[in-house]
Amino acid sequence: MAEKKELLYEGKAKRVFATGDPDLVIQDFKDDATAFNGLKKGQIADKGVVNNTISSALFTLLESKGIRTHFISRLSEREMLIKKLTILPVELVVRNVAAGSLCKRYGIKEGLVLDQPIIECYFKNDALGDPLMNDDHVVMFNLATREQLAEIKSQAVKINIILKSYFLERGLKLIDFKLEFGVHKGEVLLGDEISPDTCRFWDSVTNEKMDKDRFRLDLGSVEETYQEVLSRITGKA
Amino acid sequence: MAEKKELLYEGKAKRVFATGDPDLVIQDFKDDATAFNGLKKGQIADKGVVNNTISSALFTLLESKGIRTHFISRLSEREMLIKKLTILPVELVVRNVAAGSLCKRYGIKEGLVLDQPIIECYFKNDALGDPLMNDDHVVMFNLATREQLAEIKSQAVKINIILKSYFLERGLKLIDFKLEFGVHKGEVLLGDEISPDTCRFWDSVTNEKMDKDRFRLDLGSVEETYQEVLSRITGKA
Repeated sequence: MAEKKELLYEGKAKRVFATGDPDLVIQDFKDDATAFNGLKKGQIADKGVVNNTISSALFTLLESKGIRTHFISRLSEREMLIKKLTILPVELVVRNVAAGSLCKRYGIKEGLVLDQPIIECYFKNDALGDPLMNDDHVVMFNLATREQLAEIKSQAVKINIILKSYFLERGLKLIDFKLEFGVHKGEVLLGDEISPDTCRFWDSVTNEKMDKDRFRLDLGSVEETYQEVLSRITGKA
Repeated sequence: MAEKKELLYEGKAKRVFATGDPDLVIQDFKDDATAFNGLKKGQIADKGVVNNTISSALFTLLESKGIRTHFISRLSEREMLIKKLTILPVELVVRNVAAGSLCKRYGIKEGLVLDQPIIECYFKNDALGDPLMNDDHVVMFNLATREQLAEIKSQAVKINIILKSYFLERGLKLIDFKLEFGVHKGEVLLGDEISPDTCRFWDSVTNEKMDKDRFRLDLGSVEETYQEVLSRITGKA
């Protein structure tokens, strides 16, 4: 059993704690919710439990399909044991359907189905508002090497194929999602979480929003929606 | 002699007129200056004359080095005869040194010399404020094909090499510049203009700004600077 030691880092939705093993850390999921780069703040009851459980299930799924991740095991309701990563300060967003900032930035109608997924890189920098970058920026600002960038984009394409079909079997369209990668002992691994905080899901029949947009856009039934996504993934009613 | 017929298009800095030949148009350079997506407006006396003369010289230079452009001939002080293009709605920006929006967007110090040029694509859309795009956006939104995009980026790299050395011989560092391309009879050609409106130049000794930033940032000596750049290019004192 991993021993929980000092707090190493506190983010908007998670805390990271040291363990007795310098290569391993514990990721502890909070109920805190933020949106619009921290301008909107709130709490979603039991979100930490939901996101830890969903992320654990999805990392397990991805590992079974050959994707290397930081995940080791789910320790408790809110805790996950993971490999310690040096996070690449690039957030990858994969988009299958136009929504959110894509629509706003380019004047695209929400719901436009993209012929091919669009992959975007964002500079992970709260003070700058996580600005969009192209590949040249990522490489020239030393956020990742050209080879690491090619590798994580290729992983993102594979992850998208796996997750799209997994969610569709559970009545959810995967609209878009964010991924973070990091380096552990020289190897690039998928990190962070995969949850309704980091993905957009729409009900495959009604197109109802089933993700953090319910919080962002004040659509109501926030907790109920997180629980519903959890039950579709775990198969528990 | 090309006959000037009806106005086809009026932009912020130029007007385009039909000629008797449907494949050719006349580009007429105005003194109007705008900045910050049209929020700042003014006039720079004789800017049209300067930019037409500089652009004509630079298109002639580039053609001599194997770059295909829309340029045919300088007709008068403010007029240039060009091939009619269907402009690709993507503006390419090539950056050698950090300045302007790059610094603001990514928190980079002005003057940082980039190890390799950064090429950026912007959606040519005033209503949206010409937002930054990556290659996936350009292709998925049908602004250019994947092949056209590769071609214009490759042209931009070559143009940068030619212009950097040309300007350095004239005491100017080429900090960054914007290019527009268009299709004429199935062929992709360099279009628009190349001038102190579309380039950033710094004096190679003093690093003084020698371009539209003098207007944007209210640095004074705007007309004098445009004339100085002209005289360095034409070699006339």
